Amino acid sequence: MILTLTLNPAIDLTYTLPALHPGASHRVPEPLQRAGGKGVNVARVLTEQGHPALVLAPVGGPTGTQFRTDLDQAAIPHRLVPVQVPTRRTITLVTPAHTTALNEAGQTPGTDELDLILQTTCDALAGAQVLVCSGSVPAGAPADLITRVVDLARAAGVPVIVDTSGPALLAAADAGADVLKPNQDELAGITPTLLPDDDAPPAPGTGPVGARAPQAAVPAARALARRSGGVVFASLGAAGMLAVPGTGPAWHAHLPQPLHGNPTGAGDAAVAAIAVALAAHGSTMTGAPLAGALSTATAWSAAAVLTPGAGSIADPAPLADQVRTTRLPPPATEDAPATTKERP
Amino acid sequence: MILTLTLNPAIDLTYTLPALHPGASHRVPEPLQRAGGKGVNVARVLTEQGHPALVLAPVGGPTGTQFRTDLDQAAIPHRLVPVQVPTRRTITLVTPAHTTALNEAGQTPGTDELDLILQTTCDALAGAQVLVCSGSVPAGAPADLITRVVDLARAAGVPVIVDTSGPALLAAADAGADVLKPNQDELAGITPTLLPDDDAPPAPGTGPVGARAPQAAVPAARALARRSGGVVFASLGAAGMLAVPGTGPAWHAHLPQPLHGNPTGAGDAAVAAIAVALAAHGSTMTGAPLAGALSTATAWSAAAVLTPGAGSIADPAPLADQVRTTRLPPPATEDAPATTKERP
Repeated sequence: MILTLTLNPAIDLTYTLPALHPGASHRVPEPLQRAGGKGVNVARVLTEQGHPALVLAPVGGPTGTQFRTDLDQAAIPHRLVPVQVPTRRTITLVTPAHTTALNEAGQTPGTDELDLILQTTCDALAGAQVLVCSGSVPAGAPADLITRVVDLARAAGVPVIVDTSGPALLAAADAGADVLKPNQDELAGITPTLLPDDDAPPAPGTGPVGARAPQAAVPAARALARRSGGVVFASLGAAGMLAVPGTGPAWHAHLPQPLHGNPTGAGDAAVAAIAVALAAHGSTMTGAPLAGALSTATAWSAAAVLTPGAGSIADPAPLADQVRTTRLPPPATEDAPATTKERP
Repeated sequence: MILTLTLNPAIDLTYTLPALHPGASHRVPEPLQRAGGKGVNVARVLTEQGHPALVLAPVGGPTGTQFRTDLDQAAIPHRLVPVQVPTRRTITLVTPAHTTALNEAGQTPGTDELDLILQTTCDALAGAQVLVCSGSVPAGAPADLITRVVDLARAAGVPVIVDTSGPALLAAADAGADVLKPNQDELAGITPTLLPDDDAPPAPGTGPVGARAPQAAVPAARALARRSGGVVFASLGAAGMLAVPGTGPAWHAHLPQPLHGNPTGAGDAAVAAIAVALAAHGSTMTGAPLAGALSTATAWSAAAVLTPGAGSIADPAPLADQVRTTRLPPPATEDAPATTKERP
């Protein structure tokens, strides 16, 4: 069983409307509603693909009741910890022109409640092959929360994947997470900390740099992997994905042509695939198993783009046949100044 | 006790954010959340002003649970009818620049559930001085729903105020509602039906016409009052309010200077004041009692503008002293073509 811990779960409300006019009043139909948060999406994909998963999350208030009911209806196993603060909402407004998101930050459970969440995680780890800790931490959560989660998994001998951002991502590395899965923006966000002497880190959201030179993201991923002692899977959008260990060869995988669809949940599908590989190979993936995990994660991620909502993916098999996986040049070359690599 | 029936209640979620950028992702704080719908707002104002009120509404789903909890916490008496369809949401996005609303249309309860709502209304009417039926009807509700509501009140000998729009407003008039309370846009929306020969009806949202010549709205209000056999209170925003019976003098009330604030809920505060007057004077308000009710409704409406949310009003007493109430010219003049009235 793969245990997914979602510290900041949500009820996702998706409204579809013809147009969004700030300042106007809009009559909207009933939204698509379901239990969300990145760890829940990971468990949905795993369940759909036939891999046993267990959702662990705090829930509170009427939205927490709705969260529980939705998981029951979707037949996704769960262990939910009741807390006083209400489960937050995310609101997505989809128009033909664009998608607008309003994400509640989420409130932090009380100290005793956080202890109970960690104790419940500890109990559930006894039956887990892998722990996935995905998504943001609630606003105002203790700085050491992710550290305590990773420590629990390590103490239980269960490999752990962390998919988060900012200081929590760095804390997960320092605690020794086996796998970290930042996207391009999340990696860029911590690059000044990882590579303080690098005077040209990729700026968040600058986009196509990765499409032309995915290896530009390798130095930061390598630094993060060295910090954690594990592997960093860096998702680069249309440019595919990198798998970078602290030492040894890094790998790049991508599809030969760009896909059109909804990238929401693509990273969660990748994490689900990595969790399956980690359950099969253990925490020390290198060489062919690492390249294989990267290839599968790239295919599942692409399959998520081809479906409208997060947590469900198209059949990944045909995509898996198309993924191109290459071994990147060794560290000596990748650590050279970026300018030499960007020349044609 | 004043009974307020809300056929399409809602959980109102109000988010305050620095700016709304379509296509972007926004991190937002916990919203202000409460039980809403126009009839609920009327009951809130009545309760706050010391007049016993009872909320009657269908509720369903997790949002229905939240609706009930909120009324309990606000100590507003209620009689809620459980239904299968979930209570809808309204989402309001408040920025310094503007207010954007997303109002779910609401789903219609089943036929048996609608019958139970009407039976519960019938039971509650036994202890009611006035019935207020406020707000929209759920999308797809039977065309005769408002007619059945008004019929129940008339059969019980309880005067009834209806505050709705479109076909439901016309149905309420035809059923003989004692008071109708359209705003300027709602009155304009049915003017082509009321005055088919009038080739220059005020267009919805044209605004300042009322500010200059509130009596321009009198012919449509008079036609609506004749259709119902009762009185029409037409709220005209900054231009104040009209009270127009089917026959006899019409009245206009307004404040000498415009107010700055939040007009949300101003109409509901007016309905609350009218309900109190109706409870005191009965269904046949004319002359001085009608002018007094109009004056109080205008003051309560203004007091609502001075408070941020719907359902709560500032102290109306100082505003009541400022309201100017005038008797308008008799029907012969007001029925003259609009063009002659608009000349300076």
